[in-house]
Amino acid sequence: MPPAPGDREARRKDVSEAVWHVLADKGFGGLTLRAVATTMNVSTGMLMHYFPTKRALITHALDLLEVRTAERPRRARPAEGLASVRTVLLDILPLAPDDIARNRIWVSSWDLALADDGLAAEQAERYTRLRAAIRPHFEDARRLGELSSATAEVEQLAASAVAFTHGLVVQALFDPGRFPEDVQTEMLDGFIDSLR
Amino acid sequence: MPPAPGDREARRKDVSEAVWHVLADKGFGGLTLRAVATTMNVSTGMLMHYFPTKRALITHALDLLEVRTAERPRRARPAEGLASVRTVLLDILPLAPDDIARNRIWVSSWDLALADDGLAAEQAERYTRLRAAIRPHFEDARRLGELSSATAEVEQLAASAVAFTHGLVVQALFDPGRFPEDVQTEMLDGFIDSLR
Repeated sequence: MPPAPGDREARRKDVSEAVWHVLADKGFGGLTLRAVATTMNVSTGMLMHYFPTKRALITHALDLLEVRTAERPRRARPAEGLASVRTVLLDILPLAPDDIARNRIWVSSWDLALADDGLAAEQAERYTRLRAAIRPHFEDARRLGELSSATAEVEQLAASAVAFTHGLVVQALFDPGRFPEDVQTEMLDGFIDSLR
Repeated sequence: MPPAPGDREARRKDVSEAVWHVLADKGFGGLTLRAVATTMNVSTGMLMHYFPTKRALITHALDLLEVRTAERPRRARPAEGLASVRTVLLDILPLAPDDIARNRIWVSSWDLALADDGLAAEQAERYTRLRAAIRPHFEDARRLGELSSATAEVEQLAASAVAFTHGLVVQALFDPGRFPEDVQTEMLDGFIDSLR
C-alpha cells in the first residue's frame, strides 16, 4: 500500500532535516546520498526516490538554504539610518547556533557556486539584492546627517558593509572562541562608527 | 628503464600545474584524480604513483596553495602606518588574473577546511598570523596619529581589516564585472579613510 499523503509529507521533512544536518556537519563537499541515508538510517535506494541524481540532491540543498535563510527569525527594525544597517548586518552574523550552521552552509556553497556558471550568476544576483536591501538605510543615514561628508556613495557603502560582514562570518566560523557574540557585535559597532 | 631524476622533477612540476589548473577551474569540490589525469592527458593509474589516496591529492593541493601564496609577487612596502596596511591588503585582493585564481582556490578550500577539525585549526591559525602581520602597521598608524581617537584597539582593527578584505574577495570573485580593479581599490581606500 502506498504511504498516506500525511506520511509522505512527514518523510519529506525528515529528508530535508537530514540533508541540513549533513550540510552543517560536512558542507556541500560531504553531501552525498550515502551520508544522508546514514543520518536517516535508511537505504540509499529509498533516497533515490527523492533524489534520482546528485544534481537533484544539490538543488534541494540549495533551495533549503534559500528558504531557511528567508524564514529565519529577524530582529525588529524600528530604527532608521545606521541603526537599521546595524540590525540588518546583525541578522547575518553567526551569533547563535542556528546562525552558525546557516552561515557555515553558505560559505560551503561558494565552492560549488564558483565552479558552476549558473550558480555563480545566482550568487552574484543574491549579492546584488543584499546590497540593494541595505542601500536605502544608508540613504536615510545620509539624509539624517549620520555619515561623515567624506564617506563614499551609498552603493559603495553597501558593498563595503556586506564585505565587512561576510569576511567577519568566515573568520568567526573558523575561530568561534576568538569571535564570540560580544566580539562580533563590538567589531560591527566599530565598523558602523567608522562611517560617522 | 626508470626516468632520469631531471625527468621526474619535470613531471612533478607538470602534475602540480595540472592540480592548480583543476583547482582554479573546479575548486576542491571538483578535485579528483580523474580530473587531473584528463588535464594532463595521462591515465589515473600514472597519477596513483604520486597520489595513492584522495587525501594525498588534497594535501598536495593545500601545500601548493600555501607555497604559491607565500611566493606570490608583492608590492614594495616603503611606507608605514595606514599606507602599509593598504599595501598588505592590496596584495590580498583579486586584482590580476593570478590573484583571482589564488583567491578562488582559497575560498574553495574553506568548505573542505570547515568539515575537518585539523584543517579548520590550521585555517584559524592562518588568520591569527595574518592579523599579527597587520597589527604592527596599525600600531605605527596610532603612533603617527593617523587613527581617529575613537577607533578600536589594534587587534580588533586588524580583524576588521581582514574581514573587510576577505568579504570583498568573495563579492569580487562572484561579480568581477561589478568589482574591477579600480572599484576594489576605491573601496579599500574608502575603508582605510574611514579609520582616520
